Parts: sequence; C-alpha cells; structure tokens
Amino acid sequence: MTEHTAETKVKEAQTAALELATLSDDERRQGLNSIADAIDAHHEEILEANEKDVTAGEEMLAEGEYSQALVDRLELSPSKLESIAEMVRSVAEQEDPLEKTLAARRLDTDLELYKVAVPIGVVGTVFESRPDALVQIAALCLRSGNAVILKGGSEASHSNRVLYEIIREATETLPDGWAQLIEAREDVDALLEMDDAIDLLMPRGSSEFVRYIQNNTSIPVLGHTEGICHVYVDEAADLTMASNVAYDAKVQYPAVCNAVETLLVHRDVAEEFLPEITARYADAGVELRGDDAVREIVEMDTATEDDWSTEYGDLILSIRVVDSLGDAISHITNYGSKHTESIVTDDDERASQFMRSLDSASVFHNASTRFSDGYRFGLGAEVGISTGKIHARGPVGLEGLTTYKYHLEGDGHVVASYTGEDAKPYLHEELDAEW
Amino acid sequence: MTEHTAETKVKEAQTAALELATLSDDERRQGLNSIADAIDAHHEEILEANEKDVTAGEEMLAEGEYSQALVDRLELSPSKLESIAEMVRSVAEQEDPLEKTLAARRLDTDLELYKVAVPIGVVGTVFESRPDALVQIAALCLRSGNAVILKGGSEASHSNRVLYEIIREATETLPDGWAQLIEAREDVDALLEMDDAIDLLMPRGSSEFVRYIQNNTSIPVLGHTEGICHVYVDEAADLTMASNVAYDAKVQYPAVCNAVETLLVHRDVAEEFLPEITARYADAGVELRGDDAVREIVEMDTATEDDWSTEYGDLILSIRVVDSLGDAISHITNYGSKHTESIVTDDDERASQFMRSLDSASVFHNASTRFSDGYRFGLGAEVGISTGKIHARGPVGLEGLTTYKYHLEGDGHVVASYTGEDAKPYLHEELDAEW
Repeated sequence: MTEHTAETKVKEAQTAALELATLSDDERRQGLNSIADAIDAHHEEILEANEKDVTAGEEMLAEGEYSQALVDRLELSPSKLESIAEMVRSVAEQEDPLEKTLAARRLDTDLELYKVAVPIGVVGTVFESRPDALVQIAALCLRSGNAVILKGGSEASHSNRVLYEIIREATETLPDGWAQLIEAREDVDALLEMDDAIDLLMPRGSSEFVRYIQNNTSIPVLGHTEGICHVYVDEAADLTMASNVAYDAKVQYPAVCNAVETLLVHRDVAEEFLPEITARYADAGVELRGDDAVREIVEMDTATEDDWSTEYGDLILSIRVVDSLGDAISHITNYGSKHTESIVTDDDERASQFMRSLDSASVFHNASTRFSDGYRFGLGAEVGISTGKIHARGPVGLEGLTTYKYHLEGDGHVVASYTGEDAKPYLHEELDAEW
Repeated sequence: MTEHTAETKVKEAQTAALELATLSDDERRQGLNSIADAIDAHHEEILEANEKDVTAGEEMLAEGEYSQALVDRLELSPSKLESIAEMVRSVAEQEDPLEKTLAARRLDTDLELYKVAVPIGVVGTVFESRPDALVQIAALCLRSGNAVILKGGSEASHSNRVLYEIIREATETLPDGWAQLIEAREDVDALLEMDDAIDLLMPRGSSEFVRYIQNNTSIPVLGHTEGICHVYVDEAADLTMASNVAYDAKVQYPAVCNAVETLLVHRDVAEEFLPEITARYADAGVELRGDDAVREIVEMDTATEDDWSTEYGDLILSIRVVDSLGDAISHITNYGSKHTESIVTDDDERASQFMRSLDSASVFHNASTRFSDGYRFGLGAEVGISTGKIHARGPVGLEGLTTYKYHLEGDGHVVASYTGEDAKPYLHEELDAEW
C-alpha cells in the first residue's frame, strides 16, 4: 500500500471537488441523510473508540496536562450521538446555497450573462477536540458541494477515525475522496503551503491558534480570533434598557466571543447608572475592574491598560467612563477586535454615528451583543464567525462556503462586432432569469 | 520634519479610512470631480514631470534596459491627460457601491437586522509604470470609500509624485491622509507584513510579480496572474460559428489575458474544421503549434508540453485534437489557469456539462473568450480581474472594493428572552427595507 501523504490526499480532494460541484441538491442531501443514518447505526463502534480517547484524556487530566473541560468536551454518549445525527439532518434541510443565479444581465440579443453560486472547491479545516466538530464540518462542506480536509485534535483521534470511516462508507456513491482525514500535526504545516490546491482554510480554536494559521499561509482564512465586544451606554440612554442590555451581554453566557468585555458609560449618566448595574453584576458574581472615574462612584479593582484589550471569556468585566460619544468610538477603535459593539441610546442620530464610525463586523443599537450569532441572525447553519473583512464577515452561514462563476450564453458572438467604427452598443439589461 | 515611514503612512490611512466610511455619496463624488478639475488645471506641471521620466526612460532604452513599449506607456500628452480627467469623472458617475442594504431581516418585533455594504478600509496597491494607473486606482478607491496606499513603478516616479500631490491638494476637504504615496521598493515588503493594517492588496503587473505578492503576504490579494484561456470546438459545433469565435478569441486583441492560448478540437470535426481556421489564422499572422493529430491534418510546428501551459499574449496559438468532451475538460483542468473557457456546440446538454465541470471564473457557450471583461460584462468601472476564488472572482467592478457589516436595531432586546423554558421564537422574516 502506498503511503497517503497530506499532498496525495489534497490532490484526491481536488479531483473530487470538480465532481462534487456537478452534483444536484438531491444528491448532496441524500449523502447527508446517509451519514446521519450511519451514525445512528454505529453507536457501539463510535462509543467504543470514544472510550479510548476519554480514558487517555483522563490520564492526561490526572497528570495535569488536560483540563476537566477538555475531557468533558471529548466525551460522547448515545444521546449526544442522536443529536449529532439530528444536526446532520438539519444541515440537509437547509436551503441549497448552490445553483442560485446571483445576477443575470443581457449584454446583447442572445448574449446573456449569469453570475452563479458555486462551491469554493477544497476547504481545509483544523479544529478543536470535540469529535462532533468533525461531523458538523464535513456536513457543512458537503451541503455546499465542497471537498474537505479534516484535521481534528489528537485528543479525539480514535473517535475522529471511526467517525470519518463511517462518513466515508456512508457516502460511497459520492465522488471518491471528497472528505480526507489527516492526523499528524506536521501535516497542518504542509496544508498551509498548498495554496494552489486548497481554496479556503477554516481553523477553529484559540485566538493564538487562528492567528498562527493566518500568519503562516497565503491561503484565504475564514476564522475568528478574539471577540473584545463593547456596550456603550450613551448620555441619551434609557438606563433601565441599558442595564438589561449590559447585563445580558455579560451574564447570559460569558464564555463566548460575543459576550461584552468592556462597558463604556457616558460621564453624564455614570453616577446614576453605575451603582445599579454594578450591584446586578455583583449579584451574578461578575468581577469588576474600573478606571478611576468609575471607582470614584463604585468601589472595585483598578482596570489596567491590559484590561481594555483582554477577552476574559468569563464573569469579569472592565468598565470605563467616557466624556463623549467620540471618546467611546476612539476607545473601541483602539482596543476592540472589530467583532460586535452595541450602543444604548434613545437618540437615533447618535446611534447612527456610532454604527457608521466603527469598523466592526456587527454594530448594534439597543440590543445585546449576544445576538451576534448565525442562528440568531437567521443565517441557518453557522459555518463560523469571521473576524476577517474579505469574503465573509461576522456570523457566516453556508453562503460563506460558496463563491461564484460567470456563465455566458451566446450565439456565436465575437468582440470584434463591438469595437471599431461600426461598433454595436451593449444592451446591459438586468434580467430576472435563472440559468 | 519627521520622516514618513511606510508604517506611519499606513497608520494615517487607517485613521482616514474610518472617516471616509462615513462620507456621503455626494462628498465622494465631489472629491473625484475636484481631482478631475485639478488635472485639467495642471497640464503644464504634469507634463514637465513626465518629461523627466520619459527622458530617463529613453536613456534606459538606449542602454537596452527598458523596452520601447515601456517608454511609450510612460509618456503623457495633453490629450492623454484629458482622457484621464474624463475617466475620473466617469468613475464619479458610477452608481454608489456603498450605503446599499444587501439583506434585511426581522429577527423579532422591533429587532431588525441589516446587512449593509461598506468600504473594505485600507487598500494597498502596487502597480505598473503607466502614470494614469495611479489616478485610476485612487479614483476607484475614493469612489468606494477606501483609503489607498499607492506604490507606482520607479520609472514613473516624477509623474507619480506630481499626480499624487495634485490629488492630495484637490481632496483637502476629505479626511487627511486618505491617499498615501510610497516610493521605495523596500516599502513594498514592509506593506506585505502589515496584515493588521492593510485589508486588501491589489497588485498589478506581470504574473510573476502578482504571484510573488500572493506568496509573500497573509493579506488578502485581489489580483490576476495568468490567463491561459481555451476554446473547445465540440463535435456538435456549428463550424462557421466555431471559426468566428476561435478567430476573434485570438486575433481581435492577442496581448490580453482573455485571449485564447489553446484551441481544442473534437476529433470528429477536426478534418473539416482545421484547414479552414488555420488558413484564417495564417492570414492574420498567427504562429500555430499543433499536436501530432493536428499536424496530420495541417502542417505546422509541434506543440511541446510547455505550450499547453504558456500564456503567449501574442499571435501564437497551440492546437490539440481531443477524443471527447471529457478529454477537453481534463486538458483544461490540467493546463488552464481558471480564467475563461468557451465551448462551441449546438448541444445544450454538452455545453452545460462543460460549464459545470470546469472550475474557471468565466465559462462561455458560443461566445468569444474576449468578452471576459468588466466593461463588457456591464460591471461599470473595472477594478481588475481576479484569478482568486474568494471575495471577488473574474472581472471585478467597484463592488470588489466593498465588504459588508451587520447593523442590528433593537428596542432593548436581550438574548435571555430567547433561551430557556419560556424562550420566545425568532421571526426571521425577510424585509425589503433599507437601513
């Protein structure tokens, strides 16, 4: 048997990608339903493999190498497997992101241009230790007609291998090699070099990890580094609303990237607002760190310069008093991560200024930053959150795994007819037609 | 005076970009019209500076360092300057690519999400020796609200400096530093490193140069390497149409990326088709290179393996006989550059198979590859042609210099209301509204 290097696997995926792009919606849906059925049918096998990962993980936990949280994320159960199969079926039910005509234009009589949604091609993914991530990523790629290279965490290697084999067998009628598993850490670096074969990288993991990927490849990266989100309570805010939004943004679920990390409060309302909100935060166990102006009003720890650019991901919040809307915007521009910011104000003009001046993927008015999420945005299955500005920004649905190409239908048209002295003019009429 | 390093300039551009994003359509248009007026008013100054570049260029020509074509491209004239000013005015007349609501959705009562077109931010450009390129790129960036870093060819340094100063003075009412000129070659490498400040790179120049940029930065690149385009004459082709399309695709203007480089002919029509088309090509002075099967029918030079992957950009064409539509697709997949391919056939099924199976930015049916162009496609001002798949693909209009952000308008909405036992459902109704 010849060794399957990362390069061979990517080549196979490239070939498969061309075929995948020609599959119908039904064929891709059927593939997904087969995967779901196969997961249902192989609980025993999967749980057996998962047991090995969990046992190894617990040893590492005992040695202090892994955290309890990591081991918890590793563990599968029959009900977890049912929900994974359910997730795959729900991806199958998503509206087809392909075969859509994005624009159509009549260039001249019988010369019609169609801009058509197509898969990107080969998507390289490197993801965290949750074994359900492998299934989810493979499902999203198949739904959008992309071949996929899967590199999971080594902690989950037994689970990943079994899940991958189940997926492969369940999709034997699909183009061979559409999903590829790679396991060695050094293969990740090999992937980063393959800019002529891999069209998009989707890393998932810590900010440092995503940044490492971004900095070490010329392949486009759809990923998400940190979320340093802000809530700004304006002088014209309804303070009850401000309290609810600021509370929800931190407390409702602090471990995620769209939770608020710094609360900015206009000086004119600070004295009224801060005692109330900080009491609520304290009741919820939030550790507070304030600048001098905040600490004159409410006692708390001092926020250092570092606090303004820290993603706590926890029940910790930094608070600053600002003198103006402009100062709030400057603070966010200097320290933010361009993820999600919210202003609470009854003044629409000021809201608009805040939203236009900030270069963040999501800017909210009178709403919690926690709404920044593909499901809540109504994008359907969430592919990820992008902190990049190009191609896909903010919460990304299946659309983020597509690109487009141009189809031109002519009747023997040549450019020479449209140049020179007797040049025909172009019509350039927008059409409603589907290709 | 402190030295303005590339880094300082990019920082200034970053600050300007945030302000630029808040300008109205009118303000950006006015800026462009001021630039056009200023060019009209400063012919003498520009031509004087240009004279220096041309003189230096002619010396280099005498020393065999530059080509005549390069020196020709350098030279400006009063009529050339008029057409440059006209071009700037026409960019001002383009429909605003910003302030468009791309999608709107009601998440719940009084909770409305808007996906809004916004500028990308800071665009870094490195371009060829034509001094009009500087003006065109600055105009396209301003129209789309982007700050721009301009690095022109050193051959045009005097012209570029004067044109840049004229643009700067003409746009003094716009955010200071929105356009920045850099001149040193080493500053290009500095730009490539600034992935946290520059949002998009637009290199223009040779394939090698664009590839160098792509391979040496983690900043997204909108660029165009080579165009190895194909015309495939199917067995079901109307051969008169095929002859016209194949002739136009090569002869109408061979120096450009959308000209055909390899003609593929189905074996069943080769004997009838090749003598006629090759005679026409010969009359037009096209040098032909064929594979063995072609040379059995018409005498010509032998095409080597290298020919199939060469962008001639000249009156040279390679020709190959293929046994099937599948072989044509395989040839293009192996040797093409994913730019533009055309099939000539009367069989719609086969056309569709060709167009779906190829992973090229533009796939044509019964039309010359030369239509692959922003103007002909009706995209308005052409920003460039992208051989990348992400963000912008094929001919790119002003839209390629925009991204989007999400605006969410709420009324104190918090995520906690939509979770847990009494969770409210989301409405997720599509809206027609503009933000």
